[in-house]
Amino acid sequence: MLNETHDPELRSWVASANLAGADFPIQNLPFGVFRRQASNEQWRIGVAIGSDILDLSQVAEHFSDLDHATLAACRASNLNQLMSLTPVIWHSIRVQLSRMLRQGSGLQAALEPLLLAQDEAEMALPAAIGDYTDFYASIFHATNIGSMFRPDNPLLPNYKYVPIGYHGRASSIRVSGTQVKRPHGQTKAPDAAAPSFGPCRLLDYELELGFWVGQGNQLGQPISIEQAEDHVFGVCLLNDWSARDIQAWEYQPLGPFLAKNFISSISPWVVTLEALAPYRCPAFERPADDPAPLAYLDSPANRSAGGLDVVLEVSLQTANMREAGQAAEVLSLGNFRDMYWTFGQMLTHHASNGCNLQPGDLLGSGTISGPSKDSRGCLMELTWRGQEPIQLSNGEERRFLQAGDEVIIRGWCGTANGLKIGFGECRGVVLD
Amino acid sequence: MLNETHDPELRSWVASANLAGADFPIQNLPFGVFRRQASNEQWRIGVAIGSDILDLSQVAEHFSDLDHATLAACRASNLNQLMSLTPVIWHSIRVQLSRMLRQGSGLQAALEPLLLAQDEAEMALPAAIGDYTDFYASIFHATNIGSMFRPDNPLLPNYKYVPIGYHGRASSIRVSGTQVKRPHGQTKAPDAAAPSFGPCRLLDYELELGFWVGQGNQLGQPISIEQAEDHVFGVCLLNDWSARDIQAWEYQPLGPFLAKNFISSISPWVVTLEALAPYRCPAFERPADDPAPLAYLDSPANRSAGGLDVVLEVSLQTANMREAGQAAEVLSLGNFRDMYWTFGQMLTHHASNGCNLQPGDLLGSGTISGPSKDSRGCLMELTWRGQEPIQLSNGEERRFLQAGDEVIIRGWCGTANGLKIGFGECRGVVLD
Repeated sequence: MLNETHDPELRSWVASANLAGADFPIQNLPFGVFRRQASNEQWRIGVAIGSDILDLSQVAEHFSDLDHATLAACRASNLNQLMSLTPVIWHSIRVQLSRMLRQGSGLQAALEPLLLAQDEAEMALPAAIGDYTDFYASIFHATNIGSMFRPDNPLLPNYKYVPIGYHGRASSIRVSGTQVKRPHGQTKAPDAAAPSFGPCRLLDYELELGFWVGQGNQLGQPISIEQAEDHVFGVCLLNDWSARDIQAWEYQPLGPFLAKNFISSISPWVVTLEALAPYRCPAFERPADDPAPLAYLDSPANRSAGGLDVVLEVSLQTANMREAGQAAEVLSLGNFRDMYWTFGQMLTHHASNGCNLQPGDLLGSGTISGPSKDSRGCLMELTWRGQEPIQLSNGEERRFLQAGDEVIIRGWCGTANGLKIGFGECRGVVLD
Repeated sequence: MLNETHDPELRSWVASANLAGADFPIQNLPFGVFRRQASNEQWRIGVAIGSDILDLSQVAEHFSDLDHATLAACRASNLNQLMSLTPVIWHSIRVQLSRMLRQGSGLQAALEPLLLAQDEAEMALPAAIGDYTDFYASIFHATNIGSMFRPDNPLLPNYKYVPIGYHGRASSIRVSGTQVKRPHGQTKAPDAAAPSFGPCRLLDYELELGFWVGQGNQLGQPISIEQAEDHVFGVCLLNDWSARDIQAWEYQPLGPFLAKNFISSISPWVVTLEALAPYRCPAFERPADDPAPLAYLDSPANRSAGGLDVVLEVSLQTANMREAGQAAEVLSLGNFRDMYWTFGQMLTHHASNGCNLQPGDLLGSGTISGPSKDSRGCLMELTWRGQEPIQLSNGEERRFLQAGDEVIIRGWCGTANGLKIGFGECRGVVLD
């Protein structure tokens, strides 16, 4: 599965891409949608390289062997058309971009004018999101949350068989940097006679990855576990902001609704599955007592390499920290390899009843929590429903999010010999 | 609220619109998207009149006082642009269509060439559906279903406060007439040690109305109950096909997912809210012991006229009946006025946390069941989870749907002096 684009020795003529620890070395090449800040330019597709963006709409003449539809997809205003193509075509684009951007490509003079500094760019959602589905694939998260909402019954009997998911709201997904307005809603204290309507008091974030559907399937045609990954274009960071007090009151019997759909934030760069190939790992090792996945969710390849070794970090910068010039403080550090279900299993399950997925659909992983306390992916778990507040180094404490708090999610694969495949950031400041 | 378009004495020069009991008299004028059957014509907007369709894309020259954007919306290939306009503009279009189609309009010769018989048309989804939300607004349905899934706790404590809803799948919504392929999925018999994967055995329909969002709201900007109806363009029939055995196993804790998203069917005609004005009725009369709605869900207008008096009929034609030339048999007859929550309350609740609704979003009402057994809107309730099979007149019986069964939903308002505002039909045949 590895090819010339993964060679850790590759260097780019874009110098910032070669810095140790850069998110976007030439081995990454994620796609996004950008335009110059404060402009009325058309949105167009770009590829992140170092601290710059290569304007994909302008490099057509340097591609060879791409058909008309693919070239048109490269010039579109979002990634949906590109996502609708095949892994073979995605690979062809990646190889050619890698060759163009390598040291010694001979194209530096031609392509430098097509670079824009990321600092000077405004990013949009990478694609028009048809449907957004959120899963619940961390058994550690499910067990922690379950024990708070249902102490007598933390992990439900279906969990180890069903990659539990539910439909979320597509319209309220926003790109990193969008402010998060505290929602109002119905909440009810356990001892109150009736609920009341007002501002959410238990505002939380949820650390997730988002998987972008590439090729779709026809209604009524499932996608086998063997083929699942051919339908995934790439991956982003996702913050599934959550109003825990609204959630507790509304979620039965049909699941979370207004507690989740006031906004979800995603990182602007889509890291392709091909870029992540060196960081695949075995699926979660189920304890001996756990059932094996049902046959439709099981394959040798999924067992041996269905996992994904991505480090995920959540940090927080309060308004006071920002004013004092203090950096954000890390709240947790997790890894996607701790997920009970692989993204391939999630996708196959989703389509197993014939549900049709479409290019640009987004599948959220659910909160990524690991077994240790410092790997828990939301405040609900980190503070155990607010009972164990987090002490910040400047003397503040947090049970849930306060006005002015900025939550910053980062993710990356691998740091051996300085090479990193970074996801960039997913940020949002809470406003009251 | 009533105006010249509602006058029951109006007659059209399209003779079929004047027949007693016609679904589409000149007082109705619903919108849909059509083209000639078996053609490659562009999809275009039409208005149903009697047994014909008036091609809205061709009547521009007969409109006066419509701005460029409105005329462009009338020539679009779906209703989204028209939905994004305002009730004032919708009203202007309706008045002008009513005047054009009236007996004596003087436009019969000019407009007759723009008619196509519905029999010769193929219908598409009326709009591109951004997000689909399904509610649970019948307290009779919620109590019946609850008593099967949670006998000790049929109606949850939040029900009388929260218009319970959840996000459904937009991609798998199809227009009436699309075949319904029996889904596969995980199911688990109560006495089985583990679930298994296979065809759904408890396939059901759900009788609902769908409300099409017109004007949207900005993220973070709620919609008050007083303004809610200005955001509703119109109404259709909806069949939320359900796999009860998949649902029972998967739905906790995040709600129904694969049990519902394999297909949902809608009727092709959107009956505008203005056409329904004569059939508004008080909101459901809550029993004296029930709490009043919280303030954000309450208004004098909602109490006095938030309801909707629509008769809803479900009938079934089995393969045997079809082969024998027997008509479909009525399974239930309900009325939307029995819903605990009004559609205005559902919409206001949906946006109460700032969630942004968009033109072309679809809000399902949830299964429409009334207090009597013959008004129950799904087989799950009618056969009480299959324990009390329905006896059909040809000797067949049904607990759940079988291959070849066609479910036909019809709806209409008013039948006094032969005038009816019909919704047409929502049909689907089950395939194994």
